[in-house]
Amino acid sequence: MNMKEATKKMKQDSPKLAGLSEAQRNLALEKVKEALLLNREAIFLENKKDMEAAEKMGIAPAVKKRLKFDEHKLMDVVNGISELIKLPDPLGKVQLARQLDDGLNLYRVSCPIGVIGIIFEARPDALVQISSLCLKSGNCAILKGGKETARTNKILFDIIYKAATSVGVPEGCMLQAEQHNEIDELLSCHESVDLLIPRGSNSFVQYIMNHTKIPVMGHADGVCHIYVDKEYDKKKAIPVIVDAKTQYTAACNAVETLLVHREIAKEFLPELETALKEAGVKIRGTKEVSEIISCEVMGEEEFHTEYLDLVLSVKLVEDEEEAIAHINHYGSHHTDCILTENQEIAEKFMQLVDSAGVYQNCSTRFADGFRYGFGAEVGISTGKIHARGPVGLEGLVTYKYKLYGQGQIVADYAQGNSQFHFKEL
Amino acid sequence: MNMKEATKKMKQDSPKLAGLSEAQRNLALEKVKEALLLNREAIFLENKKDMEAAEKMGIAPAVKKRLKFDEHKLMDVVNGISELIKLPDPLGKVQLARQLDDGLNLYRVSCPIGVIGIIFEARPDALVQISSLCLKSGNCAILKGGKETARTNKILFDIIYKAATSVGVPEGCMLQAEQHNEIDELLSCHESVDLLIPRGSNSFVQYIMNHTKIPVMGHADGVCHIYVDKEYDKKKAIPVIVDAKTQYTAACNAVETLLVHREIAKEFLPELETALKEAGVKIRGTKEVSEIISCEVMGEEEFHTEYLDLVLSVKLVEDEEEAIAHINHYGSHHTDCILTENQEIAEKFMQLVDSAGVYQNCSTRFADGFRYGFGAEVGISTGKIHARGPVGLEGLVTYKYKLYGQGQIVADYAQGNSQFHFKEL
Repeated sequence: MNMKEATKKMKQDSPKLAGLSEAQRNLALEKVKEALLLNREAIFLENKKDMEAAEKMGIAPAVKKRLKFDEHKLMDVVNGISELIKLPDPLGKVQLARQLDDGLNLYRVSCPIGVIGIIFEARPDALVQISSLCLKSGNCAILKGGKETARTNKILFDIIYKAATSVGVPEGCMLQAEQHNEIDELLSCHESVDLLIPRGSNSFVQYIMNHTKIPVMGHADGVCHIYVDKEYDKKKAIPVIVDAKTQYTAACNAVETLLVHREIAKEFLPELETALKEAGVKIRGTKEVSEIISCEVMGEEEFHTEYLDLVLSVKLVEDEEEAIAHINHYGSHHTDCILTENQEIAEKFMQLVDSAGVYQNCSTRFADGFRYGFGAEVGISTGKIHARGPVGLEGLVTYKYKLYGQGQIVADYAQGNSQFHFKEL
Repeated sequence: MNMKEATKKMKQDSPKLAGLSEAQRNLALEKVKEALLLNREAIFLENKKDMEAAEKMGIAPAVKKRLKFDEHKLMDVVNGISELIKLPDPLGKVQLARQLDDGLNLYRVSCPIGVIGIIFEARPDALVQISSLCLKSGNCAILKGGKETARTNKILFDIIYKAATSVGVPEGCMLQAEQHNEIDELLSCHESVDLLIPRGSNSFVQYIMNHTKIPVMGHADGVCHIYVDKEYDKKKAIPVIVDAKTQYTAACNAVETLLVHREIAKEFLPELETALKEAGVKIRGTKEVSEIISCEVMGEEEFHTEYLDLVLSVKLVEDEEEAIAHINHYGSHHTDCILTENQEIAEKFMQLVDSAGVYQNCSTRFADGFRYGFGAEVGISTGKIHARGPVGLEGLVTYKYKLYGQGQIVADYAQGNSQFHFKEL
């Protein structure tokens, strides 16, 4: 069966999955969790093979970190599933109940989106997270992982599929695509696929966004900023910047550009330089910065760059307004932070910076579904339509309006024979 | 200034509008309402000119109905604005407040989407509705109306713009495009425009959807169905069907296809035929239908057709399952209704039909923001991403996550020195 036929069939079958009870969906998740733990050694073995092959290909360290699926990543995804099971059912929630007129009752009820295509590069943990979220939210999933972790993806999918279908999840509701050419096929299935979630590099996500009519949820790049205001607290600033840059360099929520208030540059930059050097971070600064500390002088283009490496751009600004303008212009509307003790300036920054996450005095690395308490995340969206920021279950549901009447017709209201009275139920 | 520069500037200025208080935005709406009522004669005069020109062009009656902006349409939009003013502020709503750990507080707060492009054919009332909704929700708007009502659009926009800016709405935050070539320019402004809302014919909306990277909210066609179950109530069925077909034939929520349970066809169809004939509706039926009543025999293609005219497709089905499968296959996921007294069958239909609106025993014409109590509507969305069904204010806002910390870093949580405790605030 080709992708078009497979997704068409999945679309037809999707109401079967949508119709499972909350208990059935949670049971499937329990089984998935058990099966992952039970098969951990087999998973690690397949991942080891993938890692060895990657080694031979000479893959960059930042990417290798993403390929790895070890005990730590396993526990992360397993804990994510446990949290997910505990979360309230996202389906069947009555979001609005309104009597339009006597005997004419409107309800808005949450329901699954339907068929979701997930395409990701180099992150086997994403396969587990996203398929769990799809199960919990009653969505059919087509999963396509990166070729670098083909073995890890295959074993993870097989384990999840077997566990889920063993307790009543319909067979046609999860599918793994293994061939690279299936991506382009999938992109053309806009009649059956309701949403695409790509996770990977900027160019990869851009490619997906530019080659499909299916709505895409995600982010291309993560050019995150920290602005150090003149009323900053040095004890907070240095650890937060070092954490945001180094705690997981390959992550989209790592900081790429530091903006520093000009008035404090001379006292702050030398101390920062020492701390960053210790952490192995190279500074690329504007000419002005290079006159205060030793650093490589950077060009404007680098303000658009997501390094995904131990490199940080540094620029001085006149005030928070220049910082806000810089972030809105060069940023990717992902996550941006202000370090200040001045609450008024913090609020102004958080109001005017047009990003999914606006932070005061904490690391940008907190931008994550698990850390927000969502149980697991589908990804982080920098779009403003549908879900924004770290996306958990809510991003995987839509709703429908149910209207129950007793024969009412619109002509009566148009002619004034009847009147709406809009009473919340 | 060309469209690219104008939208770029609008994007930069959009925080000014987003920063207006609720009182300021409501005052602007009051002024718009007053100005529309005050200038009614001038508006009707411009519309009369448009209608005369349309007459000369020989425009179809269904379209002419959409061009008209008379006392009735004026009162509709003015009442819509009054409702809108009364509605709670959609901005600054705290949708989630969660303590992640001591002194690390996360808030999800609603905010405007930013810059919205609205392109509509032949419906001057849409200009008023949508610009009011944008004002209430703090969004910048670029409005492009159809050339058939260029005079009406121009006077409406001028009145609204003058009224709104007279009480503090920033000048660059509303813009009318008047040239047809500006549509293609607007479609290419994906760096500055956050959302497009097209309203018009199927081919028009399809064109927009296929020629832009900007997210599009709306619907191409409205192929709505009514299914008459064997346990129907004839006293309700005939008025509902006649209303859904004839009350406003040019509307997207008018019914196009009637599905009738085979068991009741012989008793029901002759009575229906009489009622529809009286209302001027032509029936196109399958061969089977033509053996019961006199009608034109139709082909399969017509099940995909939005007639927007006094024509109704009729087909017999075996049961609700065949009806559901037909609707999910041929429909446009807009609004579909079941006529039945059997509550179990109604619930099944409403669960399994994959449409924005699923109705029992009432006219499909109720699918409308005003009738749902939203004050006014931006349009009806058949997409499942972001807003679905009639879209009021909620469809015009997004949210951002605000995280307030005291220097917290992720490394402490990753290493187990700190623990999240997720407490709702």
